[in-house]
Amino acid sequence: MDIKQVDEFAKEIIFKAGQRIRDAFSYDIEIETKSNANDLVTNIDRETELFFIEKIKEFNPTHRILGEEGMGEKVESLEGVVWIIDPIDGTMNFVKQHRHFMISIGIYVDGVGKLGYIFDVMREDLFNAIAGVGAWYNDSPLRKLQPLKIEEAVIGINANWVTPNKRINHEKIIELVRTVRGTRSYGSAAMEIAFVISGKLDAYISMRLAPWDIGGGVVIAKEVGAVATNFNGKVFDFLTADTFLIANPAIHQLILEKYIEEKK
Amino acid sequence: MDIKQVDEFAKEIIFKAGQRIRDAFSYDIEIETKSNANDLVTNIDRETELFFIEKIKEFNPTHRILGEEGMGEKVESLEGVVWIIDPIDGTMNFVKQHRHFMISIGIYVDGVGKLGYIFDVMREDLFNAIAGVGAWYNDSPLRKLQPLKIEEAVIGINANWVTPNKRINHEKIIELVRTVRGTRSYGSAAMEIAFVISGKLDAYISMRLAPWDIGGGVVIAKEVGAVATNFNGKVFDFLTADTFLIANPAIHQLILEKYIEEKK
Repeated sequence: MDIKQVDEFAKEIIFKAGQRIRDAFSYDIEIETKSNANDLVTNIDRETELFFIEKIKEFNPTHRILGEEGMGEKVESLEGVVWIIDPIDGTMNFVKQHRHFMISIGIYVDGVGKLGYIFDVMREDLFNAIAGVGAWYNDSPLRKLQPLKIEEAVIGINANWVTPNKRINHEKIIELVRTVRGTRSYGSAAMEIAFVISGKLDAYISMRLAPWDIGGGVVIAKEVGAVATNFNGKVFDFLTADTFLIANPAIHQLILEKYIEEKK
Repeated sequence: MDIKQVDEFAKEIIFKAGQRIRDAFSYDIEIETKSNANDLVTNIDRETELFFIEKIKEFNPTHRILGEEGMGEKVESLEGVVWIIDPIDGTMNFVKQHRHFMISIGIYVDGVGKLGYIFDVMREDLFNAIAGVGAWYNDSPLRKLQPLKIEEAVIGINANWVTPNKRINHEKIIELVRTVRGTRSYGSAAMEIAFVISGKLDAYISMRLAPWDIGGGVVIAKEVGAVATNFNGKVFDFLTADTFLIANPAIHQLILEKYIEEKK
């Protein structure tokens, strides 16, 4: 695979898809309810995924696509070249706020992340990386994350995880919330990951994410030194859903050990 | 007071202040700690307030200024024309994210809100209103908020208020968080108020805000039908700090009655 060529092609279709989405705001957005009320999906969401599939298959028919909307073939292994795509991460923001939603794309070769993209569609802001080469924010190189203390950290976490729940000991999360300088919640995993990668947040925690939520982000994370794992400190499982913590390298282990206790 | 003339002048100095702040990002930001670690303040913050004071005093020396940085005279009553100014709401975002901070200005005549402005400095997005005339988002009229059910609401609330605290019964807030469709937290009261006003959020709750956090927002709120009160359902006290709830009119009373229980 010619990485440089794929990178240029990926950027090209991301910018085009972004333009299509921005144009579509002039039309009404038709919404239906997926599996639950938190999981809105729109025509634009699906059309964007189909747009990516069509373009990628034209570019190289052997590339496979693992997408949130499931419009591509069924992907049961990460052999060969696999594009992991979320056409619109932050669908509720998309519908309600017309901002704060991202296109997230990761390109993997035999399971290894080679290219990563998070694109803020309304701001036209691109975070991207080429594995082993570097990471950029709109063509400016992203710096390695600088160490900081947990008391100085601003973390992304949803209020739900601070309440009693089946997955983790919420008392420890309360302790974390009280220890850090501040918390934020934006309603888009890819946005919060992009913020950690660029030092705008210092950690982001979620009890359950799908591969397409993080497929782009983890490739970029590696290039800036952000650490991304599941709650066992292991690599996120890309063929199912998993827990997820991405953080500044100075506080990742501390958060895992001191503040996250999974219920078994 | 010629409202139209003051409105034009206010917009002019807000846009100029925004330009100054964006320019200043080319220089280093000098930070000091105010009363606590959550309360960062920068030179730019103070210089922006001084800029406003100077311009307003030139415009009309009888106008008084109640500002977060306290660079103006001491304001102990709302008699006459008072500008309530937060030069940078969301200081931590300003320092760390270089986005998501607002200039907030409300202009009051004998305690009555006449003009309101919330300006997203980096996006160059203006939310504003003239009392009794209307509200705008970048010159497009803002619509009256449409009714919705609490289960459909997305609310702004900080994770801290979901944990045991001295001010309110957090168990009821947990119930609220579980009832609504989603929660967000942006780290800028003025941003969250602007989002409620424009239907991007449906409520925003805070246990303690200062007049400059909401002085601009409550004037705009009235024009779109958003309801803004303290936790007693009364008008926010502009001469001290107070509790604050702004919400879609369909859910304001419900949130107050069912989910907010102050500890006395």
